[in-house]
Amino acid sequence: MTDTTAPAPKNPFELPDVTHVTVAVLGGTGEQGRGLALRFARAGHRVVIGSRSAERAQEIAATMGDLVSGASNEDAARAGDVVIVAVPWDGHRELLASLAEPLAGKIVIDCVNPLGFDKQGAFALPVEEGSAAQQAASVLPNSRVVAAFHHISAVLLLDETVESIDTDVVVLGDDREATDTVQALASRIPGIRGIYGGRLRNAGQVEAWTANLISMNRRYKVHAGVRITDI
Amino acid sequence: MTDTTAPAPKNPFELPDVTHVTVAVLGGTGEQGRGLALRFARAGHRVVIGSRSAERAQEIAATMGDLVSGASNEDAARAGDVVIVAVPWDGHRELLASLAEPLAGKIVIDCVNPLGFDKQGAFALPVEEGSAAQQAASVLPNSRVVAAFHHISAVLLLDETVESIDTDVVVLGDDREATDTVQALASRIPGIRGIYGGRLRNAGQVEAWTANLISMNRRYKVHAGVRITDI
Repeated sequence: MTDTTAPAPKNPFELPDVTHVTVAVLGGTGEQGRGLALRFARAGHRVVIGSRSAERAQEIAATMGDLVSGASNEDAARAGDVVIVAVPWDGHRELLASLAEPLAGKIVIDCVNPLGFDKQGAFALPVEEGSAAQQAASVLPNSRVVAAFHHISAVLLLDETVESIDTDVVVLGDDREATDTVQALASRIPGIRGIYGGRLRNAGQVEAWTANLISMNRRYKVHAGVRITDI
Repeated sequence: MTDTTAPAPKNPFELPDVTHVTVAVLGGTGEQGRGLALRFARAGHRVVIGSRSAERAQEIAATMGDLVSGASNEDAARAGDVVIVAVPWDGHRELLASLAEPLAGKIVIDCVNPLGFDKQGAFALPVEEGSAAQQAASVLPNSRVVAAFHHISAVLLLDETVESIDTDVVVLGDDREATDTVQALASRIPGIRGIYGGRLRNAGQVEAWTANLISMNRRYKVHAGVRITDI
């Protein structure tokens, strides 16, 4: 017997239209931030690059076409419909805590990897909250925090001759509408699929996995990415 | 000017011949263990399934063809050239500590994922040593511990109609000869490549990532695996 009162499970491949979303990138003058800004602008999105220095953000934005503008991190946070956090791990908590008000109600995408480096390569740093994304959620209680975009090589993002990037973006979060939106946004970059990868409590290992990709890059002289099979 | 005294880096795709390796599987009567035993026997390896109960191991082995035999975990540990640890996380440390002597000098492959489960799915358990593999290394100081085979679906391993498994096996360890051997062994299963993924200190997130694959399996109704791109 079928329980007809249970709601049908939502089709995981049915994602919202995000064509008109304005993307802000905090720390948008760093390599990862610039790379993502470039790719979203190429996909037709308005992009606002944020930086501690609005002037520096404007200088970088001026090299990236009409769709990209620069601002202070606070003004970028206000301007974005969706806000990507691409700041260094060092200072992550303090910056986000200072932006709790402009980020309230918004989808905030944390792509920060808390890593250390020594002569043997990269390794995961312990994080009190479990992950950078959970730290973001703890200081942004009124935002919808999603973890994504941890693994895409900045070298590939910034290389304008690379048309399509052969990788999936694993998207984590506790708010289905927010993770669906971020999956759709990831899929705006040619080659990339946004794949749901679990709740925020499982973000730590996704961030730390970047250390493994760095080990592969070193061993094989590549820009390693990840594809999920059977999806 | 080229420094001609520096050794040429070893080709990461040049792996040893492992055709004649006998594989032991501790906890070989569990799903993951049985699945791996089956695949290595199909690839032509002698396999010894170990279990707390030698009788139970022999019963299971008898269903798996002439290349597979069953034994106590201790006898299996003695019989294997390479020994896979596929026991439950609960009791992992105690079992390995009790086998330190028969496992001395051998390559020991830990594929254990320390996970918890609740109604929201799977999550990574904290491990004092950082990972199951590092725990194994700490109680087996005379073995060559490698972490691998964390992510292959037991359902696919055990399904004899599945000829080829579309996934990579990430191999971690601090001993190059040992990781090369385990990469070669992983590549004996059709469809699979063994890819070096870093030192043992970066094993924790690879184990924990299994929780993300379980989240994907649930959302997409699949048996998700991982492929590394650009390699």
